[in-house]
Amino acid sequence: MNQPTVADVGELELLKRLQPFCAQDLLGDDAAVLPPRSQSQVITTDVLVDGVHFSDHTTSPTAVGWRAIAANLSDLAAMGASPTGVTVGLALPGATPVIWVEQVYQGMVDCLQTYGGKIIGGDVVRSPQTMLSITALGEVAPQRVIRRDRAQPGHVILATGWHGASRAGLELLLQPQKSEYLSETNRQAFIQAHQYPLPRLDVVGLLAALEDEEFLTLAGMDSSDGLANAVLWLCQASGVGAKLRRSRLPIPPSLTTWVGDETALNWCLYGGEDFELVLCLPAETALELLPVLGDRASIIGTIEAGSEVELVDDVSGEPDLRLTWDGCFQHF
Amino acid sequence: MNQPTVADVGELELLKRLQPFCAQDLLGDDAAVLPPRSQSQVITTDVLVDGVHFSDHTTSPTAVGWRAIAANLSDLAAMGASPTGVTVGLALPGATPVIWVEQVYQGMVDCLQTYGGKIIGGDVVRSPQTMLSITALGEVAPQRVIRRDRAQPGHVILATGWHGASRAGLELLLQPQKSEYLSETNRQAFIQAHQYPLPRLDVVGLLAALEDEEFLTLAGMDSSDGLANAVLWLCQASGVGAKLRRSRLPIPPSLTTWVGDETALNWCLYGGEDFELVLCLPAETALELLPVLGDRASIIGTIEAGSEVELVDDVSGEPDLRLTWDGCFQHF
Repeated sequence: MNQPTVADVGELELLKRLQPFCAQDLLGDDAAVLPPRSQSQVITTDVLVDGVHFSDHTTSPTAVGWRAIAANLSDLAAMGASPTGVTVGLALPGATPVIWVEQVYQGMVDCLQTYGGKIIGGDVVRSPQTMLSITALGEVAPQRVIRRDRAQPGHVILATGWHGASRAGLELLLQPQKSEYLSETNRQAFIQAHQYPLPRLDVVGLLAALEDEEFLTLAGMDSSDGLANAVLWLCQASGVGAKLRRSRLPIPPSLTTWVGDETALNWCLYGGEDFELVLCLPAETALELLPVLGDRASIIGTIEAGSEVELVDDVSGEPDLRLTWDGCFQHF
Repeated sequence: MNQPTVADVGELELLKRLQPFCAQDLLGDDAAVLPPRSQSQVITTDVLVDGVHFSDHTTSPTAVGWRAIAANLSDLAAMGASPTGVTVGLALPGATPVIWVEQVYQGMVDCLQTYGGKIIGGDVVRSPQTMLSITALGEVAPQRVIRRDRAQPGHVILATGWHGASRAGLELLLQPQKSEYLSETNRQAFIQAHQYPLPRLDVVGLLAALEDEEFLTLAGMDSSDGLANAVLWLCQASGVGAKLRRSRLPIPPSLTTWVGDETALNWCLYGGEDFELVLCLPAETALELLPVLGDRASIIGTIEAGSEVELVDDVSGEPDLRLTWDGCFQHF
């Protein structure tokens, strides 16, 4: 590896090389300037640390960039917002190859070009630890913001896609030998789900079919920290409980075949990073939406009075399982 | 030190403790929502790494928080914008005392309460290295944005305050024994300048006296990376040169007495982190502004045709000095 490092080229040259990845008309001053907006502004920040949230063992630099942006765009989608721009804070050791940085930016731009928005600013600094901090800006009509606190007893819970696939992809990257029990197509699909997750901004577009009033009885968030975590958050914010049906959980069939019922259930509920949306809404609205959301979307349970979040085991007939925060990923 | 750490209390409890420092009405979903704005939105990001941009040896946690916000608000002031909100990305080892985090947030809130804006969102994650990434949002009337590329030959260069004081404060924190040659008042003033810098949002308020047309012949930026760096940037962005007059440089007299002419000159030009504003504008506008900016503000030189940035030595009569990027702080 005889590639020039960030320390070799210096800060000014590094910034010059990153310039082509950024919105030309918005950069070059102390801060970016966006024109006045008639819609509500949505803003979200995610920090990703090398060795904690990504690793060179499991993620190419392009995928590091893609995932960092995808995680933020997923937060925007969770609010019903469309992306307008991002700022990128990047902390790097001087020994980082310039090509690594360029590929991270390429991955970010790839994701932004797919979903909208541009890199409008940022900061690159020296650090013993590689870290990425992304702030994404989006916009949404004020009356069409998706909130967490509007789940009501009688609502159904709708999840937009497979859950557990990203966790399966991580397993395959950490322990490649396990793939021998899996078809090549499925192996690649799981790894793709982990490395290049797709934020569900398409769902935001499909929600355009709803009336403004329907947003008043719509709650939602993304499942970045796991499906169980999303349901627990929605219930806590809304002061309600929920019953999930095990037979309805969106577990990829190939995952169950590969790792068995129990592990598949665990990864579906707690794996995280699937970046799907979990919506609570009246059944009739859900049934309107389901056909346009495609066949992976499904009604996985119902919102109930009270505060218990239970998994009804309609598969093996075991006693109902109470879902708690303890099983969920905690950052500390 | 038997204080509970971040790992002791866990993520949910940590977020609960940080909640009181944040804007209650804006938090609690996947992202913050700000109402529609009739003005241009200005957005800026700064990353601060422990051991690189701050250190427990020289900075209390309250000062770490204050400086992180002040640096971002200074970028907003440089654009002529007023702060509306910030997001805080925080990466921390699990062993960090909770009280440290609370004090950093207290410092941030202290600065925001002084200058405007609230903490509207963020992310706290685990990391071997402590890092802060702040994104600040501000607003400004579209026709009153301060740009870097509008300096013209015939303009004068106006600097808003002392330069070199922050670097002097850092020296005193790193080598306390040096303070024996300094009065206690001056010692404290330098340390204060380093630990609790004041972003010049007051100047943004004073510029309100200018007409819209006067902004078309106003260039400016902040001096966070040093006075020389600011002049070099302004000249490069505008395609002009400059002549600074050594006798007019805003060096605190007590600094020259303490460290001598050469070091004082060096710290004034290259020390950085004074977070003052450097403006290029017609002499008559500058003369209008000077009385309201207070006695530390001064005209330090003129914008010239060409691209050379020279320091005219009207003090010792030495040959003119050409200022280059080489002397400036580089992040790598």
